[in-house]
Amino acid sequence: MWLYEKKMEYPIEIKNKNLKFAKQLITQYGGFAGELNAALRYLNQRYIMPDNRGRALLTDIGNEELGHVEMLQTMLYQLLKDATVDEIKEAGLDSWYTEHKRGIYPTDANGVAYTVAYFAETGDPIADLVEDMAAEEKARIVYENLIDLTDDPDIIGPLLWLRQREIVHFNRFKELYEYYKANVK
Amino acid sequence: MWLYEKKMEYPIEIKNKNLKFAKQLITQYGGFAGELNAALRYLNQRYIMPDNRGRALLTDIGNEELGHVEMLQTMLYQLLKDATVDEIKEAGLDSWYTEHKRGIYPTDANGVAYTVAYFAETGDPIADLVEDMAAEEKARIVYENLIDLTDDPDIIGPLLWLRQREIVHFNRFKELYEYYKANVK
Amino acid sequence: MWLYEKKMEYPIEIKNKNLKFAKQLITQYGGFAGELNAALRYLNQRYIMPDNRGRALLTDIGNEELGHVEMLQTMLYQLLKDATVDEIKEAGLDSWYTEHKRGIYPTDANGVAYTVAYFAETGDPIADLVEDMAAEEKARIVYENLIDLTDDPDIIGPLLWLRQREIVHFNRFKELYEYYKANVK
Amino acid sequence: MWLYEKKMEYPIEIKNKNLKFAKQLITQYGGFAGELNAALRYLNQRYIMPDNRGRALLTDIGNEELGHVEMLQTMLYQLLKDATVDEIKEAGLDSWYTEHKRGIYPTDANGVAYTVAYFAETGDPIADLVEDMAAEEKARIVYENLIDLTDDPDIIGPLLWLRQREIVHFNRFKELYEYYKANVK
Amino acid sequence: MWLYEKKMEYPIEIKNKNLKFAKQLITQYGGFAGELNAALRYLNQRYIMPDNRGRALLTDIGNEELGHVEMLQTMLYQLLKDATVDEIKEAGLDSWYTEHKRGIYPTDANGVAYTVAYFAETGDPIADLVEDMAAEEKARIVYENLIDLTDDPDIIGPLLWLRQREIVHFNRFKELYEYYKANVK
Amino acid sequence: MWLYEKKMEYPIEIKNKNLKFAKQLITQYGGFAGELNAALRYLNQRYIMPDNRGRALLTDIGNEELGHVEMLQTMLYQLLKDATVDEIKEAGLDSWYTEHKRGIYPTDANGVAYTVAYFAETGDPIADLVEDMAAEEKARIVYENLIDLTDDPDIIGPLLWLRQREIVHFNRFKELYEYYKANVK
Repeated sequence: MWLYEKKMEYPIEIKNKNLKFAKQLITQYGGFAGELNAALRYLNQRYIMPDNRGRALLTDIGNEELGHVEMLQTMLYQLLKDATVDEIKEAGLDSWYTEHKRGIYPTDANGVAYTVAYFAETGDPIADLVEDMAAEEKARIVYENLIDLTDDPDIIGPLLWLRQREIVHFNRFKELYEYYKANVK
Repeated sequence: MWLYEKKMEYPIEIKNKNLKFAKQLITQYGGFAGELNAALRYLNQRYIMPDNRGRALLTDIGNEELGHVEMLQTMLYQLLKDATVDEIKEAGLDSWYTEHKRGIYPTDANGVAYTVAYFAETGDPIADLVEDMAAEEKARIVYENLIDLTDDPDIIGPLLWLRQREIVHFNRFKELYEYYKANVK
Repeated sequence: MWLYEKKMEYPIEIKNKNLKFAKQLITQYGGFAGELNAALRYLNQRYIMPDNRGRALLTDIGNEELGHVEMLQTMLYQLLKDATVDEIKEAGLDSWYTEHKRGIYPTDANGVAYTVAYFAETGDPIADLVEDMAAEEKARIVYENLIDLTDDPDIIGPLLWLRQREIVHFNRFKELYEYYKANVK
Repeated sequence: MWLYEKKMEYPIEIKNKNLKFAKQLITQYGGFAGELNAALRYLNQRYIMPDNRGRALLTDIGNEELGHVEMLQTMLYQLLKDATVDEIKEAGLDSWYTEHKRGIYPTDANGVAYTVAYFAETGDPIADLVEDMAAEEKARIVYENLIDLTDDPDIIGPLLWLRQREIVHFNRFKELYEYYKANVK
Repeated sequence: MWLYEKKMEYPIEIKNKNLKFAKQLITQYGGFAGELNAALRYLNQRYIMPDNRGRALLTDIGNEELGHVEMLQTMLYQLLKDATVDEIKEAGLDSWYTEHKRGIYPTDANGVAYTVAYFAETGDPIADLVEDMAAEEKARIVYENLIDLTDDPDIIGPLLWLRQREIVHFNRFKELYEYYKANVK
Repeated sequence: MWLYEKKMEYPIEIKNKNLKFAKQLITQYGGFAGELNAALRYLNQRYIMPDNRGRALLTDIGNEELGHVEMLQTMLYQLLKDATVDEIKEAGLDSWYTEHKRGIYPTDANGVAYTVAYFAETGDPIADLVEDMAAEEKARIVYENLIDLTDDPDIIGPLLWLRQREIVHFNRFKELYEYYKANVK
């Protein structure tokens, strides 16, 4: 079970209304390389890991990704919360407003609803860990693309931190993958 | 952010391999009335609640539903973990095994991958709270249907407890809904 | 069965080519809170209502929603029918034209095809009626959002009327819900 | 707009609980060749027909298909309404019951929710009419397949009638197609 | 099996960065009337054709459509490959870049991922061939719409050629359809 | 472009009607780890590889996977082609027959239509290659699971060969990945 702590993993404080950027940023909430997909993938796959080391790592990273989901939600919330209808129209967010006002909803950058079809659960620890390494690499790239598209330091800061976490996770998954390759039949 | 505690909200200990039942039970993990849908709905909608009371309630229940997701995952895991291939075939879980071995993956009872299209985020607290009341009623009914289909007390116990929680949540959402109807413009 | 009457439930006569607005308006045809979803939900759920009163109400409102579908279709048709290719490009409807010319197709505001995953059928009258109340509230909010985004009286008129119908339906569903809560075991 | 008449286009009276067959039959409600898809396709496409003849034909057949939807719903309802939980389990409808009790919901034979992605709207009358001819042929084949799978005359009767209507519609669409090919630039 | 030949069915050489057009053009890669859908449809349906003539025709056209897929991929690749981030932003391709950089991915013009739900396989040669005729007509129309939207001769050339192939295929499917209508029971 | 050669990559000759197995086998045609997904992934991703070595490898393996698609199609076709309606019913393939007769259609083992949402295209060669390594591992596991479920040597033979190819591909992707890590900025 989880205990919620009213604290962000990394501080989010966006001062400028960078409304247009919300349309791209949301893909790291609900897109194929997004944090929701990561959290659900790991918290789902942990059950079939062959030992406590594997189960603990998947739980640990899955749990951290839940915190990343919250970071993305908070960034999106801060971007939209004080926008007027005129600002929303000017930024081309008319469709967002029509369906969700200033609320957020997990989609990709085209507005397509998140689906768990984006991840796989093979039930095999080796295959699942390669999938997880791929997931971290995909997320890293999308963070880099997002950073290419903005120059707001309030946004770039958390994105750089999140990108760095993907690299850390990749390495931890790789280490476990190599351990299981060597030690698990 | 979340702290993971290695403890179940309600104890799960399934002793009989009730494999066939896993095909129905999984809908409360990844189906339209399932716990994953509930957790994501509330943890998503909490941002647009107009005051701390609303945000706290949505966070609190959303967090509890994460624990329910874990209960469902654990039930499914225990049902499958020691099954032989012959037992799997006899129970008609050949397709499950082919794609996921003894792993679990959030689908409905037909094997359709979970999608957030099952919930809505209108960005309006009143409308979202009625949606939430509906969600709790739908989950309650599906738990009752599942209980109709089994006589294993190790399964019925947790399902009765989960059903009871839906009723509690319905009432808490209703109370907040009525408070906002009276007090929020 | 149905008899078609060549008459609109509420008159539609849009004089200005408000092309850009079509992209948002279409969500009330094929989006999660749209009229097609409403019509199909009620005409599907009516079968499990426990008495004639329930079956009649669901049939009656479902049937009215079919007429609302036609109103939305007509609004979209009138917005697009005389647009030149240049006007279409200027309004940013290039993708619409590519795939449908000036035709209409039930999607949400992002162009995602309508799916019945947006509604539920639990087979339980109480749970289905709370779902229906939520549906009416969600549709009301989306109409209000659309009205925020336009100032064309030819569009606002029908939208206000449609919004009003959602309130009426909400109340009728609530009344039936309370009657069944009190009278049906 | 539509007037509902409490009358079936063709009488439905199923006396035997042919529960297992419901799993196949439902595809003609919510599958790719089903009646819901037909009704929505024609009632959507009618707007871009170049003259009253076309608009009237699409409206007329679309309207009739709405009545076919009701026939399918009624057949499914009659098959399930008096089934006990034991009969449901024996027929392998456990998943149906879990999610919908004895209610019905528009899916294909695998339980996949209906989506309008099954039909197209090109906005061109010629292309849309060939699509419509294809739709009628696909529906005819699925009715023939269903008839192959049952020997219950209460079911075969309506299916034969529905199959016959597909042939009539095919011919009417073909006639209009040829007329437009010859007369519309 | 297939042998790949490093040669385009029709030469593609796009000199201007017509970035904005990529958003529409992609639908003929991964949309409902696109070349990927055509190739998969025919290469899937060929198995149930009743004789070698049918199997050969479906294989032959299916194979040609694979080459069309490659033409579309190449057009999209050439449109994007040298674009700077600033040009991408100006053309409104921010979301594309975020998720795919300058890579391509089979979607429709709204960014919705390709699904085989766009085609049907009835297992009946007559019905499948009418579906195929419809497919060719739909593709022809979308090519015409795309040509309406651009004036770049490097783009129009291949699109005109592709449009012409749809007409040829329509006629070949029609011929086979009529042959089977006359000769196959 | 492609040249079709009327020859199988590996001979398929299934003598026994192992109808029931078709329901599982089909996932390697149209499921998340299936050959269609592999072929489309590689033939799509090849464009963004930074040099000829990468483009050639992706094209080569993508092309081979097209041949694997054909092997799977042929296996499924041979399993079904001579089945009587009674045999189909006995094997529990009623739903398959209803919708596709003895035809085949790319789905997973639950009958869910194939979607390209199962693969990603990041536009980055490093991330795409890790995704490709994961894909090969996932496919290998599913072949192993299928082999666990049957004892028919006519089926096991091709599956063992296909499984072996996944291992070869994994190694070739890994080699390229390491080369790019060392040599591409």
